[in-house]
Amino acid sequence: MGARTYRTVLIGAGNVASFLKANIKSPFELTCVGGRQRRCPIPKDADLYIISVSDRAIKSVSEELIGVEGLVVHTAGSMPMNVLPQERRGVLYPLQTISKKRQIPASRVPFYIEASKEQDIDLLRLLAESMGSKAEQMDSERRKYLHLAAVFCCNFVNRLYGITADLLEAHNIPFSVMLPLIQETADKVKLLLPSEAQTGPAVRWDEEVMAKQMSLLDDEQKLIYQLLSKSIHDDKLRLDKD
Amino acid sequence: MGARTYRTVLIGAGNVASFLKANIKSPFELTCVGGRQRRCPIPKDADLYIISVSDRAIKSVSEELIGVEGLVVHTAGSMPMNVLPQERRGVLYPLQTISKKRQIPASRVPFYIEASKEQDIDLLRLLAESMGSKAEQMDSERRKYLHLAAVFCCNFVNRLYGITADLLEAHNIPFSVMLPLIQETADKVKLLLPSEAQTGPAVRWDEEVMAKQMSLLDDEQKLIYQLLSKSIHDDKLRLDKD
Repeated sequence: MGARTYRTVLIGAGNVASFLKANIKSPFELTCVGGRQRRCPIPKDADLYIISVSDRAIKSVSEELIGVEGLVVHTAGSMPMNVLPQERRGVLYPLQTISKKRQIPASRVPFYIEASKEQDIDLLRLLAESMGSKAEQMDSERRKYLHLAAVFCCNFVNRLYGITADLLEAHNIPFSVMLPLIQETADKVKLLLPSEAQTGPAVRWDEEVMAKQMSLLDDEQKLIYQLLSKSIHDDKLRLDKD
Repeated sequence: MGARTYRTVLIGAGNVASFLKANIKSPFELTCVGGRQRRCPIPKDADLYIISVSDRAIKSVSEELIGVEGLVVHTAGSMPMNVLPQERRGVLYPLQTISKKRQIPASRVPFYIEASKEQDIDLLRLLAESMGSKAEQMDSERRKYLHLAAVFCCNFVNRLYGITADLLEAHNIPFSVMLPLIQETADKVKLLLPSEAQTGPAVRWDEEVMAKQMSLLDDEQKLIYQLLSKSIHDDKLRLDKD
């Protein structure tokens, strides 16, 4: 007689689904995995169904699962739990940037979880912990802001890294020269508030440097430069007033 | 008879000057340090003069040093070396975000150097190496782009961390929940190109999520959201075409 296992269906083939496929382990047991083209029919008697598809597709996929008794969860930060029609439902949101091109240990992927039934919180926590991660409870309303904030400090930050790479490449400077600066910028906010950590021409409002720098940019880069410089300046004025 | 030492004058009292003051060591010997209110008269026979003041003030400070025989350098990323009137001149630019509130080991501060005389490159390299750092040569024209790129991947990135903190604070979520994501976003570009590392609603061009997220923002945040999302999308289209 083995220990209790939880038969788990994973629907999806994107970045998060691939990460979960690679990391889900005992006492959870994947019985059917894949996107729309998967080979396996979805069993109706699994313990857990994880819908890890694009936000748009969650509703229609969840409707294929009407009548199952197991827990049905999605993995989307911005979608409320009640987009799922099941009475026994939940959310398993990994607050991390996950790409197929890069493996990341689950210990670096904190999960934010929610469930309609109290005991299912325990099940989702067990799932996270069995992967070597951890889980915090967060309701749909606050998770929405968590995801929004993540767009700023991850997706948009990465785009700024991309503009950095474009500017350097145009002048034959390798992107790697920026890595100590990128690392220290990230490290600084582990101990200082971002407003305390701010440096550069915009916080000193050095208009001469700013004008010279803007003259080196294309139109889209220039707009980003103006807007973020103004945001740095506005924030400084707000703080100086306090 | 001791080994050769280099008498060094450091003019300035800002973030970079404070960092240099704390880190300059043998064979360099600080003989006079401080901003405009310093107590010491500037000796005319020092080996090295480091002007670490605001970009605007470099010219007038350097004019106080006309006639000295030692090497005169500034520490500004955006200012050309020839803003200095001395024939024996140079630049010592630390490519790092430096704040008085945070000590950083010099080993994490790469210097980009330039000098009008070849042997002064060796002197500036010795200065960097004596601090436990290293130096690369870069001329004024390319250094200008280095500084511009640093504004994007450090100053602007830090402002996005600040907006992140504002959004979370308004919903009583501690900023620390974002640290694993901030770290991974920085780590990812050590191995992937920023364009390969990109995730989030804008790269999928998920207009429903983007519209919902923008409705949660104030006017300035909304403009930043729009502009950076568009920049992510434009970059994706460019790459898909290639």
